[in-house]
Amino acid sequence: MILDFKRKDDDLDKSERKAEIKRLRELLVGEQQTIREAKLPVIVMLEGWDCAGKGNLINELICEMDPRFFSVKGFDRTPEYGERFPFLKKFFDVLPENGKFLFMDTGWMEDTVGKYLRREIPREEYERRVESCNIMERQLRDNGYVVIKLFLHISRAEQLRRITALRDNRDTQWRVSGDDLWQQQEYDRFLKTYDSFMEDTDKVFPWHVLDGESRKKALYDGLLAITGAVEKAVKNGRYDGGPSGLKFPLLGHPSQKDADLSASISEEEYKSELERLQKKLAKLHNRIYRKKIPVVICYEGWDAAGKGGNIRRLAYPLDPRGFDVIPIASPTPGELARHYLWRFWTKLPRSGHVAIFDRTWYGRVMVERIEGFCSENAWKRAYGEINEFERELTDWGTVVLKFWIHIDPDTQLERFQARQNTPEKQWKITDEDWRNRDKWPQYEEAVEDMLRKTSTEYAPWYIVESVDKKYARIKVLRIVTDALEKAVEENVVRGMKSRKK
Amino acid sequence: MILDFKRKDDDLDKSERKAEIKRLRELLVGEQQTIREAKLPVIVMLEGWDCAGKGNLINELICEMDPRFFSVKGFDRTPEYGERFPFLKKFFDVLPENGKFLFMDTGWMEDTVGKYLRREIPREEYERRVESCNIMERQLRDNGYVVIKLFLHISRAEQLRRITALRDNRDTQWRVSGDDLWQQQEYDRFLKTYDSFMEDTDKVFPWHVLDGESRKKALYDGLLAITGAVEKAVKNGRYDGGPSGLKFPLLGHPSQKDADLSASISEEEYKSELERLQKKLAKLHNRIYRKKIPVVICYEGWDAAGKGGNIRRLAYPLDPRGFDVIPIASPTPGELARHYLWRFWTKLPRSGHVAIFDRTWYGRVMVERIEGFCSENAWKRAYGEINEFERELTDWGTVVLKFWIHIDPDTQLERFQARQNTPEKQWKITDEDWRNRDKWPQYEEAVEDMLRKTSTEYAPWYIVESVDKKYARIKVLRIVTDALEKAVEENVVRGMKSRKK
Repeated sequence: MILDFKRKDDDLDKSERKAEIKRLRELLVGEQQTIREAKLPVIVMLEGWDCAGKGNLINELICEMDPRFFSVKGFDRTPEYGERFPFLKKFFDVLPENGKFLFMDTGWMEDTVGKYLRREIPREEYERRVESCNIMERQLRDNGYVVIKLFLHISRAEQLRRITALRDNRDTQWRVSGDDLWQQQEYDRFLKTYDSFMEDTDKVFPWHVLDGESRKKALYDGLLAITGAVEKAVKNGRYDGGPSGLKFPLLGHPSQKDADLSASISEEEYKSELERLQKKLAKLHNRIYRKKIPVVICYEGWDAAGKGGNIRRLAYPLDPRGFDVIPIASPTPGELARHYLWRFWTKLPRSGHVAIFDRTWYGRVMVERIEGFCSENAWKRAYGEINEFERELTDWGTVVLKFWIHIDPDTQLERFQARQNTPEKQWKITDEDWRNRDKWPQYEEAVEDMLRKTSTEYAPWYIVESVDKKYARIKVLRIVTDALEKAVEENVVRGMKSRKK
Repeated sequence: MILDFKRKDDDLDKSERKAEIKRLRELLVGEQQTIREAKLPVIVMLEGWDCAGKGNLINELICEMDPRFFSVKGFDRTPEYGERFPFLKKFFDVLPENGKFLFMDTGWMEDTVGKYLRREIPREEYERRVESCNIMERQLRDNGYVVIKLFLHISRAEQLRRITALRDNRDTQWRVSGDDLWQQQEYDRFLKTYDSFMEDTDKVFPWHVLDGESRKKALYDGLLAITGAVEKAVKNGRYDGGPSGLKFPLLGHPSQKDADLSASISEEEYKSELERLQKKLAKLHNRIYRKKIPVVICYEGWDAAGKGGNIRRLAYPLDPRGFDVIPIASPTPGELARHYLWRFWTKLPRSGHVAIFDRTWYGRVMVERIEGFCSENAWKRAYGEINEFERELTDWGTVVLKFWIHIDPDTQLERFQARQNTPEKQWKITDEDWRNRDKWPQYEEAVEDMLRKTSTEYAPWYIVESVDKKYARIKVLRIVTDALEKAVEENVVRGMKSRKK
C-alpha cells in the first residue's frame, strides 16, 4: 500500500525545517536556470484529497520562482474539457516547453479515479485510463520529460474538520461543493481506489505521498521530491528512450510494390461516381455529426502525387462548420520544444468533427528520419508511440484512416516539369522538392517500414494509386464513405470501446 | 435601406454564368498566391438568414482553393464562447495570418443582431457592440486587413419553404432549430434590425447583399465581391492607417518627473503591511472569483526596476487556479504575421480570473517605436487602438491596472553591475540590456508619451517608485487591493457597463 497513513517523522525541529525550506526554495530557483540550459521540461503533478490544501501548497512551492519559466494549470473538474476529446488530450495540450516547469493542480489521477468513483465513467473506461496514463508517462519519459507526482494526503477526520471550518465561514462556504461532501462520505472507497491507482502507476515515475496535515512538512517533502528529481535528471542528461517492444495488432501490411499504378478510371465513370460518392458523404457527415463520431483522415504521399486535389474532392461535400483541413509544415520553435506529437494532439477534431491532415505525425519516421532531424532512437521509438497515439483516438471512438498517395518516379518528374513550365504553378515546386526526389530510394524504404509497422487493425493504411488522379480520388472517397457508413451503423458509444490487448 | 429585396438582374444566361463562375474561381485560386506574396490577410465574413444556405455557399466558394492557405471558422451560436470574454475576443482570436484567407460562417453581425433579437443582450449592449464592430473593422483596415462582408438574403416565404423541406426529411429535420422557427416568425423584426446594423456598419468595409434564392447568382456575386476587393487591395498595397483622432477621457497624467524616487518604507512597516495586504488580497481574490470579475494587471518598467519580485509578492496570495502570470517576449513569427494586439487578445483572462502581464501591448509604443520594428504610422496609431482595446475590456467589467515600475539610471547601473558580479544572476543581464540602457533618453520620452496618451479614466497608469523595491511592492499591493475592493462593492453586471462617450 502506497497510501498508508503513518506519519513519517524526521528529525527536523521547527527552525531547522524553516531553514531547510529556505534552502530548497533557493535550490529550486537555481534549478529553473539549470533546466533552461539543459532544455529539460519538468511537470509537477499535485494530486490529493479535496480540502487537503493543494492550491495553497502550489503557491508555497512556486512563490520564489520566476514566473517566466513556469506555469500552473488546474484540471479540477474543469467542465469545459468535458468529454469532447480523448482522455489524454487535455494533458498533452498543456505540455511545457523544454526548459520550463509546469505545475498541475490535479492531473490524470483525479481525472481517472475521481470520474470513476463519481460514476462519470464505467469500470472498463477506468481500466483503460490507467493504461493510458502509463503509456503517456512512458512516452513523456522517453522523450526527455521529468515528471514529479505528488499526493497530498489527509485523514477522513481531518477532511471533515476542514470542510466544517470552510462551511462555517461566510466567505469560504462556497468553496465546499457537493463533490467534497460526497468524497468525505465515501472516503474509504476513495482511499482504496487512490491507492490502487498509485500502485498501478508507480513504475515510470514514482509517487510521493505528502503529509497534508502539516503544511510545513508537506512543503518540505514536496520541495525535496522536486529538487531531487531535477538534480538527478540534470546529472543523467536528457533521456532518449528506445522502442518499447510492445506488439500491436498489425494487418497484413500493404506494400508499394503491390500497387498497380496503371489503375485508371474512365471520364464517364469518374463523373458519375464522384457525384454519387460526394452526395453519400454529405449525408454521412450529417450522421456522424449527430452521432458525435470524430474522424481523422491522414494524407501522406510523394511530392506531386496529387494530395491537394484529392483532399479538395473529399472536403467539397462536407459542411465547413464540421471539418478542418490541417496542413502540416515544418514545426515552429514552440513545437520543436515539445513532445513531437504535441502539435497533433492540440489539433484533434472534437466529437462529431472531421480533421483532414495534409501530412501528419508520420513526418517523424520519414523526413525527420531521413534528414537526421531526430535521433535514431527517436524515430525507431516513434512507430510504437504512433500506434499508441492512434489507439487512444480509436478507443475513444474516432475513425482513423490513413492514405499513402502513390506514384512512380517518372510520373513525379513529369509533374515537376509541368509545374516548372506553368507560371501560375511555379510556387508549388521548390529546390527542396528536387532534393527530396534525389532521395527516392531512402524514402521508399522509410515508407515500407512505416506501412509494415503502423498498419494496425484499428488504423489501417491504404495505398492509393495516383498516376490517374481521378482514380485516386474515387478510391479515397469509396474508402471514406464505406468506413463512415460502418461507423454510423456500429453505433459505438464514444469513449467506451474496449481495448484489444 | 441596404437590404431591399429587389432582384438585381444581370445579363448573364445560364452558360455564361457557368463560364464566369469558373473564371472567377480560377482567379480566386490565383489570388491565394498573390495575397501570399503581398502578405495580405483576407477575411470573408458570410452573414445571412437561417436556412439561406450559408454553409453551402462557403463550400462553393472554397472548393477550388488550396486548403493550406485558408481556413473556415463557424460562429453560429457556438455555446462554448459563451459570455466569459469580451465580445470582440472571439473574432480577434481567429484572425488569419498575413497571406491567408479566413472564411467566417457568421461573424460579428449575427453575434450582435441575433443575440439582441433573441433577448440574450439588452439594447444598450447591442448599441455598444455596433460601436465595437466599427472599432474592430477600422483597426483591421488600418493594420492591413482586407474584410469582405457578405449577406445571404432570402424572403420570408422562401425561408418558410426551406424550413418545411428540411423538416419533411428525416435526415435533415434535426437541422431546424427553435431559433430558426423563431426567426421565421419574427422575420420582419430581424429584417429591420439586420438592415439598421448594416447601415451602421457600412463605412469601413461595405456590405454586399447576395441573392440567396438563386445559388448560382449568389455564388457569382460572392466571387465577384471577393476577387474584386482582393484585386483592389493588392493594387493599392498594404494599408497602414494613421491615428484616428478620437478623444478618450484622459486623466491628469502622471509623469516620471513627479515621482519621488527617495520614497521608502521601514523593514518593520514593510513586513506588517505585506502580510496585511496579502491576506486582504487573498480574500478579495475569492470574491472577484465568485462575482466573475476579470482582472488585468500590466507591468512595464525599466530593466532591473524590480518587476519580477514585485509580481511574485502580488501573485503569492492568489489561488493558482485563478490567475496567470503572462511573460511577454519578442513576438513569434506567427504573432508578427497578425494584428499586433492578437497575441494579447488570445491571452485575456476569463471572467473571475486574474492575468498579470509581465510587459504588455505597450511594447508597440516603446521598443517597437524606438527600434523601428514598426512604421511611424503604426506606433502613432497605437495609442488610440490601445485605448480602444482597454475600453473593450473595462466596458465588459474588467479591472485594468497599469504599473510603470520606475527607477533612475544610477540605480539601474548599480543593479546591472550587481547582476554581472553574481554568478547565479548573470543570465538576467544581456548585451541587449546594456544597449537599451544607452537609449535611456529615447525611452524616457516614449514613456512620457505613453503616460500622457493612455492614462484613461477607465485604465489608469500608476508610477511606482522602485528604488526601494519594498516600497514599490507595498504600493502596488495597496493599489490593487483598493481597486478590487471597489470593483467588488460596485457590483457591476459584467458586460453591461455603459460606455462613456
